[in-house]
Amino acid sequence: MRYELYYWPGIQGRGEFVRLALEEAGADYVDVVRRKGGMRRMLKMLASKRLEHPPFAPPFLKAGPLIVGQTANILLFLATRHRLAPANEAGRLWVHQLQLTIADLVAEAHDTHHPIAASLYYEDQKAEARRAAKAFIAERIPKFLGYFERVLERSGSTFLAGRKLSYVDLSLFQIVEGLRYAFPRAMNRTERKFPRVVALHDRVAARPRIAAYLASKRRIAFNEDGIFRRYPELDA
Amino acid sequence: MRYELYYWPGIQGRGEFVRLALEEAGADYVDVVRRKGGMRRMLKMLASKRLEHPPFAPPFLKAGPLIVGQTANILLFLATRHRLAPANEAGRLWVHQLQLTIADLVAEAHDTHHPIAASLYYEDQKAEARRAAKAFIAERIPKFLGYFERVLERSGSTFLAGRKLSYVDLSLFQIVEGLRYAFPRAMNRTERKFPRVVALHDRVAARPRIAAYLASKRRIAFNEDGIFRRYPELDA
Repeated sequence: MRYELYYWPGIQGRGEFVRLALEEAGADYVDVVRRKGGMRRMLKMLASKRLEHPPFAPPFLKAGPLIVGQTANILLFLATRHRLAPANEAGRLWVHQLQLTIADLVAEAHDTHHPIAASLYYEDQKAEARRAAKAFIAERIPKFLGYFERVLERSGSTFLAGRKLSYVDLSLFQIVEGLRYAFPRAMNRTERKFPRVVALHDRVAARPRIAAYLASKRRIAFNEDGIFRRYPELDA
Repeated sequence: MRYELYYWPGIQGRGEFVRLALEEAGADYVDVVRRKGGMRRMLKMLASKRLEHPPFAPPFLKAGPLIVGQTANILLFLATRHRLAPANEAGRLWVHQLQLTIADLVAEAHDTHHPIAASLYYEDQKAEARRAAKAFIAERIPKFLGYFERVLERSGSTFLAGRKLSYVDLSLFQIVEGLRYAFPRAMNRTERKFPRVVALHDRVAARPRIAAYLASKRRIAFNEDGIFRRYPELDA
């Protein structure tokens, strides 16, 4: 069965966490909206009154008759099929808990450039964004990365949960990538305090399937339409 | 076994979604931090380097040896034990997907009064809060409630997912409660457009265990330290 991933084209965004899991699993999938007619199909599904489980927003994944939405929920679904999380309940919940903490971080990273409203232009909330980014860099990046550093220390492994890679390792890789893109100066100062997080990032990047993906055209470059945006004025 | 719920005292906050599930299940639980010495215990656990699964933030639930964090993840865990979600995978994922959409709404509701940083006082981001709340009321409340209205219409039942109550029904009840508290004028104009959502709220409120809980001292009143805050200047 070929998975169908539905997500906004042209950005990594939240879809990237799903792409990384599909790539690491070697799963057969198509990134629907990057193909001709895909946007129309996605918008039709979002507006549908007939779908049994209508998604609120992209990304969502079609797996045969099943449509699964919400990034962390998609990963929960994929994990059981592709061994991307421990099989026992405690381990599964733990990985999911970490993923939901990543989701919180992603939302906060987005809000640094859109603190007032997602519907307004960045230019219309630039002053507010500067204040929001300042607090995010000073308080939130260290708090989140410090937490994952502590989890890695406690796990006694090179992965966050147990001795094997799980989807949240892929997501933490993506967080480091995104923060480095958006806040290169701040991360240059900060990331050395979190050597285990950086080492995990490097290990994930070197995994054969991930390395092949990152070098391929399937990996969209970071840009200023995504969640992680490089606005030098926010990288103080 | 008695569950131990750890959450900030004095507010409903995110802990309330867990409390509602525990109450509806008739589960035996203690709200640890509302008891003597509870705050010290919670802070110790949050700072611990020895816990196998250290939580990032409250709420978290201790269930015997297991510690489960992140609101939606706690509900996922409780659902399998207390039949608060369908037993089949598709139904479980669907309820969780809806819960994660609720979580997004909760974060956005919080950010109406703290758009710049959670670490700053409301007074230091009041002008920004006014702009954020205006967009939230005009765009986001209708979008979210409209979505849940559509889900209820499509479910063909009085509940969001299937013919039986699930934890996300309890959470949507709490959303209506919170929005009515924080934005009484806006909700008075808006909620009539979402009759199924309002009817679900009323049905949940009338359930014997929920009604008993709401009338008890265990239900903390809404106040201006929580997620839903009544600042008249934001209720335009």
